[in-house]
Amino acid sequence: MSDLLLLNVRPMGGDRADILIRDGRIAAIGQGLQAPGATVEDGAGHIAIPALVDAHTHLDKTTWGMDWYTGRKGGSLQDLIDNERNSRIPLDLDVHRQSMRHAIRLAENGAGHIRSHVDVDTDHGLSLLEGKMATRDALRGIIDIQIVAFPQSGLMVRPGTYDLLDRALAAGADIVGGLDPSSMDRDPKGSLDAVFALAVKHAKPIDIHLHEYGELGAFTLDLILERTRAHGLQGLVGVSHCFTLGAHDPARVARQMDEVAREDVRIFTTGHPSAEVPSLQAMRRAGIKVGMGCDGIRDTWGPWGQPDMLHRARIVGMKNSMRRDEELELLLDVASRGGAEAMGIEGHQIAVGAAADLTLVAGQTLAHAVVEEAPRPLVVKGGRVVARAGRLAVPGVTMP
Amino acid sequence: MSDLLLLNVRPMGGDRADILIRDGRIAAIGQGLQAPGATVEDGAGHIAIPALVDAHTHLDKTTWGMDWYTGRKGGSLQDLIDNERNSRIPLDLDVHRQSMRHAIRLAENGAGHIRSHVDVDTDHGLSLLEGKMATRDALRGIIDIQIVAFPQSGLMVRPGTYDLLDRALAAGADIVGGLDPSSMDRDPKGSLDAVFALAVKHAKPIDIHLHEYGELGAFTLDLILERTRAHGLQGLVGVSHCFTLGAHDPARVARQMDEVAREDVRIFTTGHPSAEVPSLQAMRRAGIKVGMGCDGIRDTWGPWGQPDMLHRARIVGMKNSMRRDEELELLLDVASRGGAEAMGIEGHQIAVGAAADLTLVAGQTLAHAVVEEAPRPLVVKGGRVVARAGRLAVPGVTMP
Repeated sequence: MSDLLLLNVRPMGGDRADILIRDGRIAAIGQGLQAPGATVEDGAGHIAIPALVDAHTHLDKTTWGMDWYTGRKGGSLQDLIDNERNSRIPLDLDVHRQSMRHAIRLAENGAGHIRSHVDVDTDHGLSLLEGKMATRDALRGIIDIQIVAFPQSGLMVRPGTYDLLDRALAAGADIVGGLDPSSMDRDPKGSLDAVFALAVKHAKPIDIHLHEYGELGAFTLDLILERTRAHGLQGLVGVSHCFTLGAHDPARVARQMDEVAREDVRIFTTGHPSAEVPSLQAMRRAGIKVGMGCDGIRDTWGPWGQPDMLHRARIVGMKNSMRRDEELELLLDVASRGGAEAMGIEGHQIAVGAAADLTLVAGQTLAHAVVEEAPRPLVVKGGRVVARAGRLAVPGVTMP
Repeated sequence: MSDLLLLNVRPMGGDRADILIRDGRIAAIGQGLQAPGATVEDGAGHIAIPALVDAHTHLDKTTWGMDWYTGRKGGSLQDLIDNERNSRIPLDLDVHRQSMRHAIRLAENGAGHIRSHVDVDTDHGLSLLEGKMATRDALRGIIDIQIVAFPQSGLMVRPGTYDLLDRALAAGADIVGGLDPSSMDRDPKGSLDAVFALAVKHAKPIDIHLHEYGELGAFTLDLILERTRAHGLQGLVGVSHCFTLGAHDPARVARQMDEVAREDVRIFTTGHPSAEVPSLQAMRRAGIKVGMGCDGIRDTWGPWGQPDMLHRARIVGMKNSMRRDEELELLLDVASRGGAEAMGIEGHQIAVGAAADLTLVAGQTLAHAVVEEAPRPLVVKGGRVVARAGRLAVPGVTMP
C-alpha cells in the first residue's frame, strides 16, 4: 500500500494541517508536508477525528434494506426476545447479509471499530456466530469487528447454552457475553460464575448486558464487581446498559460508580429510549471508561436508529441533557477515542504513531460536527480510504 | 390557479389512487381520474398524508445557516432566557431572516401549518413580532403561520409587558402567550388573570408555556383549568410542554388529564430532551387534543433538532417508548391531522372537500414513513406544489 498524504484537514478541529500516513500508521502531522509517490487526498478543510466506534450493537438483527417489518410487539423483555428468536427464520433474517449491511453503513459513516453481540442459543446453535464471523472476515481492513458470544435467550435457564458459548469462544468469538443474571437468568451466582469461568478458561474479556433496574441491578452489579476483583480481571470486564446506575439514588449510584472506576469495569451505553440511563457526565467524572453504541437498529425489537455513530451521539446527548460545546466534545470523545479505549483498543487518536483509523466530519467545530447531519467526507481505515462522501469506496466490496 | 391532478399516490398508505385538486381543495380521490387542462404530477406510488404541522416552535430563535454558536450555557431557565435576550443583537439574530430559514425548511419537509411563539419583552418591544409578521406575509400560500405573542422574559415580573402584549395582539399576533405563571412570573393569579383578560379583550386563543414540575405545575394547571371553565373558553386554551402531566404520580396525572380533556384544553408537546414529558398515548386515551412541535432548533438554548416534523416525531416517539406500528401511526397523526385540530384547524385530512394541504412521504407504510430519513417527494399547499424532493419549488421565493 502506498503512502497516503491527507492535505488540508483540521485535526480535532484545530488549525489546518496535513497528515502523512505510512504503513497504516500516522507518520507525520504538520503544514506543507511532502511525500513523493504518496497518494494525495484533499481534505478540503474538514475536521479530522479518530474513527468513530460503535461499542455496542447487534449487527445481524437489523432489518435494514428489507421490507418494513410489521410484527413489533409490546410486552416484557422476555416477549421481545421470544418474538425475535421465533421471527428470524420466517423473516429470512440472514445474519451475514444483514450484518454486512449494518457494518458497511457504519463504516460509510466513519466508524472504524465495532463490538457486536451475536446470539448463541439452543435453537440456532453457532449458526449466527458463523454468519457474523464471515462478515468480520469480509470486512477486514475496512472495519474491525469484535464479536461477543451472547446468550440472548439465557444461560442458566437454557441448558446447553454453556457448552455452546464454550464452543463459540473456541471457534472465534472474542468476548464472553452475559444477560441479566438475576432478572432473566434467574440465578445470579450461577450465571456470573459461569461467565467468569468461560472468561478465565479462554482468556477473553467479558461484556454483560445488565438491564436490571434499581436495587436488583445494584445487587447484580456488586456481584460483577466482586468477581472482577477476585479474578483480577480489572480492565477486562464490561457492563452494557447498566440502567441501575441511572437510578434516582445519588448516594448509592455514586458509591457504585466509584467502585466501577476502581475495578476498571467498562460501561457501554446506548441512550436507550425506554429507560433511565446512567449519566455520561457523571460516569466520566468518576473516571469510568465509557463506550457508546447504536444498539439494535430497525430490528424486531424497535424501529428506531440509524447505523451512524453521530446519529447515536445525538440521541445519547439529548438523553443526557447536554447542550454546551464542551458537553458535545465529551460526547464525540466517547463515540470515538473513549469508546475504543473502553473496548481495549489503546492509542486511538490523531497522533503520530497511532493507527491511521480516522474520519473527516462536516462542521466548523467539534461540537458542530456532532449535530450537523451530513455525510462523512472521507473515511480512512489502516491508512486506506474506505469511503467518500458517505459511500463505500473499496474496489470489490459492495453493499449486499 | 389551474387544477392539479396528482396521479398514483397512496392516501394514508392505502391503495393507489389519484387525487384531483380544484380551487385549493381536494375535489376527488379515485382511480383513473381525468381532468382536462389540469397540471399533472406523478406521485410515483408514495404515501400521501395531510401536511405535517409544527404546533410549537420559535421560528426566529434558530441560528440555522449562521456560524456555529459557541455561547450556550448551563444553569437555570432564567439563565438561558437572559443569555438569549442579551445575545440577539451581538449575534445579529435577525428575526425575519432566521424565521424565513426555519419556516422554509419546515415547508420543504412537508409542513403546512406552524404555530410560532415570538418574544415580546421590554428590551425588544414589538420589533421581533414585526419581523415574524413579515415572514408570515412572505410565506402566505406556502405555509400558514400562527403567531403567539409570548412574554418570554415574564409578564408580571417585567412591568410594561402587559401593554406590549396588548399592542402585539392589536397589531396582528394571533394568540396570547404566557410563561410559567408561578415559577417564572411569581404571581400565578395575577399572571393568569392578565393572560385571560387579554384573550377575552381581543377574542383570541391562549397558549401558555408551562415548564413547572410536580405539585407546583399541577397547581398552576388547575388555575388554568378553573379560568378556562369560568370564561367558557373550552377549545381556545392551550398549554405547551405541561411537564407536570409527565410526573410519576399516576392518580393525580390521570385526574388532571381527564379535566384537561373535559375543558378541551389543548396540549402541545415537543419530546423535550431534558424533562419528563406527558405520555402521548395516555393523553390521547384521555381524549385530549394534542399537537407536536419541534420547539427551538439549534438556538442559543440548545444545539439539537432539525426543522422537520418527521425528525421531531422520532424524538417524541423514542421519548414515549413507542415501537409498534400502531404507535408510530398515532405519532404521525399527532404530527399532522391531530396537531392541526389542536391548533383549531378543522378538517385537516386527505378527504374530498378538505383543504389541499398535503405531503408525500417515503416509505412502504405509515409507520415506515415515520422512521425513514428521506426528503419529502412532493409538498402541496392550497393546491399548489411548493416543494419537490425536499427543496422549495415556488418561483420568486428563495431561502435567505
